[in-house]
Amino acid sequence: MSVLFYSQADDPVPWRNAFAAALPQMPFQVWPDVEDMESVRYALVWNPPSGLLEKLPKLRAVLALGAGVDALIADPTTPQVPVVRLLDAGLAAQMAEYAVYAVLHFHRRMRDYEKQQQKRTWNQLAPMPASGWSVGVMGTGVIGGIILKHLVTLGYRVRGWSLSGTSIEGVESFVGEDELDAFLSECRVVINVLPLTPSTAGILGVRTFNVMPRGSYVVNIGRGGHLIEEDLLADLDSGQIAGAMLDVFNEEPLPQSSPLWSHPNVIVTPHIAGVTIASEAEEQVIENVKRMERGETPVGVVDRSKGY
Amino acid sequence: MSVLFYSQADDPVPWRNAFAAALPQMPFQVWPDVEDMESVRYALVWNPPSGLLEKLPKLRAVLALGAGVDALIADPTTPQVPVVRLLDAGLAAQMAEYAVYAVLHFHRRMRDYEKQQQKRTWNQLAPMPASGWSVGVMGTGVIGGIILKHLVTLGYRVRGWSLSGTSIEGVESFVGEDELDAFLSECRVVINVLPLTPSTAGILGVRTFNVMPRGSYVVNIGRGGHLIEEDLLADLDSGQIAGAMLDVFNEEPLPQSSPLWSHPNVIVTPHIAGVTIASEAEEQVIENVKRMERGETPVGVVDRSKGY
Repeated sequence: MSVLFYSQADDPVPWRNAFAAALPQMPFQVWPDVEDMESVRYALVWNPPSGLLEKLPKLRAVLALGAGVDALIADPTTPQVPVVRLLDAGLAAQMAEYAVYAVLHFHRRMRDYEKQQQKRTWNQLAPMPASGWSVGVMGTGVIGGIILKHLVTLGYRVRGWSLSGTSIEGVESFVGEDELDAFLSECRVVINVLPLTPSTAGILGVRTFNVMPRGSYVVNIGRGGHLIEEDLLADLDSGQIAGAMLDVFNEEPLPQSSPLWSHPNVIVTPHIAGVTIASEAEEQVIENVKRMERGETPVGVVDRSKGY
Repeated sequence: MSVLFYSQADDPVPWRNAFAAALPQMPFQVWPDVEDMESVRYALVWNPPSGLLEKLPKLRAVLALGAGVDALIADPTTPQVPVVRLLDAGLAAQMAEYAVYAVLHFHRRMRDYEKQQQKRTWNQLAPMPASGWSVGVMGTGVIGGIILKHLVTLGYRVRGWSLSGTSIEGVESFVGEDELDAFLSECRVVINVLPLTPSTAGILGVRTFNVMPRGSYVVNIGRGGHLIEEDLLADLDSGQIAGAMLDVFNEEPLPQSSPLWSHPNVIVTPHIAGVTIASEAEEQVIENVKRMERGETPVGVVDRSKGY
């Protein structure tokens, strides 16, 4: 038995060391230096090339090096073994930092002040209390829950929307497609952290934007597939949407030709809202391998019918 | 008896309405439309011209429309009656928003990502967990306490410094000039919310900066007099200080000629970190007037020997 590691985004060394310390009997093979495909029982992967996993005859589970497993689930060559995603590993805390930053940036009009600084203009814009700002989070799982907790502490009026109906204490909750418009109708800022599934693809588009109050803001740290980029650009130009902070895109890296790069009211970051930090993820992954070795179910198994 | 209102920064209308509702027997005179200086018992003011207050023979108290009373205290024409400052009135919450924004901006390298966006560059910079970032707050009163609470919730390593020794639960506390260097030596970010007094004037200068780790950040939302601007510019250019976010200045509005406006690693905002919001301050001020009318001591009386 062995572990196969594949990632273009993660350094294998800390993972190799963690496995050597915790599971010394389990060889750790880093792609492409794989001596023995036959022995691979666990694949620890991020964005593996299509077809790689189906070459592992004894594979028992795919352990994703991140929380988003949409590509793995969508790939027909992914074997029918449990796919396990990272439930946190520092991701939630980082994504919450990003989301809080985005809300403060828009609420406190930091882009306006930046423009004033460039012109050496000293002009105090009218203050807006956080209690008068309604912020909505789409997706109320672990990540959405942490974001909402911070926003409540900062005094924002918050609301959450999810397909499945997870409710969070102290947060006005909206559930299912029937309640999406009611949720959106009072969002000065919408933060998307939904998983990407057939039900949520393209959910951030003109239909959604037009239900939000005029001059609202969009923060996407879910997946590029949630956002219809042309719709956003059109509604930015009409003023329906006042600004956006985007970390994920339909095509990554974002193509040089994308008009998002140079739009004055769009902040583009290169998929850095939540990055797996090995030291925080190792314990979770190794514990899951130990569980499976004992015949138990790992934590974080993806429900393929839901997609997360 | 009457109230005199003087401010170039605050709208008198909500104040007049609040007083009319709560203390209808007390006339509310808005400078310069003052019919009767003799009757003024309470002066509700922000930055009154020197000499105005000494013309009020029956003045019982000066009620400041803000938390910073250094100018009032320093003015020799301010009568020897109690000077009362606003203790919160939304100021603390707003200043905490600003401080949290500044920390996230520097920690999450948002300026670097902004520069990358301008060049259409997609490059993921190494993530840094908040737990590895030490943030120090100078001033541990109401405002510093709220800032520290938010930073703790976000997972930062925090520490507080004060002259008087207020300690805050869960925060490593440093007290007095003897412990200033120990406090500074591990601050990746220093946030100043001290009151301006002879003991704290110029506290943010080359001596302080050189004790901080190389490449640290400075956030000033106290008073312009805390910061020696030339020292900051020199240490920004040497790289000792990596960036600064400044809301207060020695001269306000910041002069057109100031090199701070155009420094690539300085964010300038026009004294907007905490702005008194009348609806949140009214209750506090009116309650204090009622207390004094009953012969009681108001809340927030400034100790002139300390300056706050």
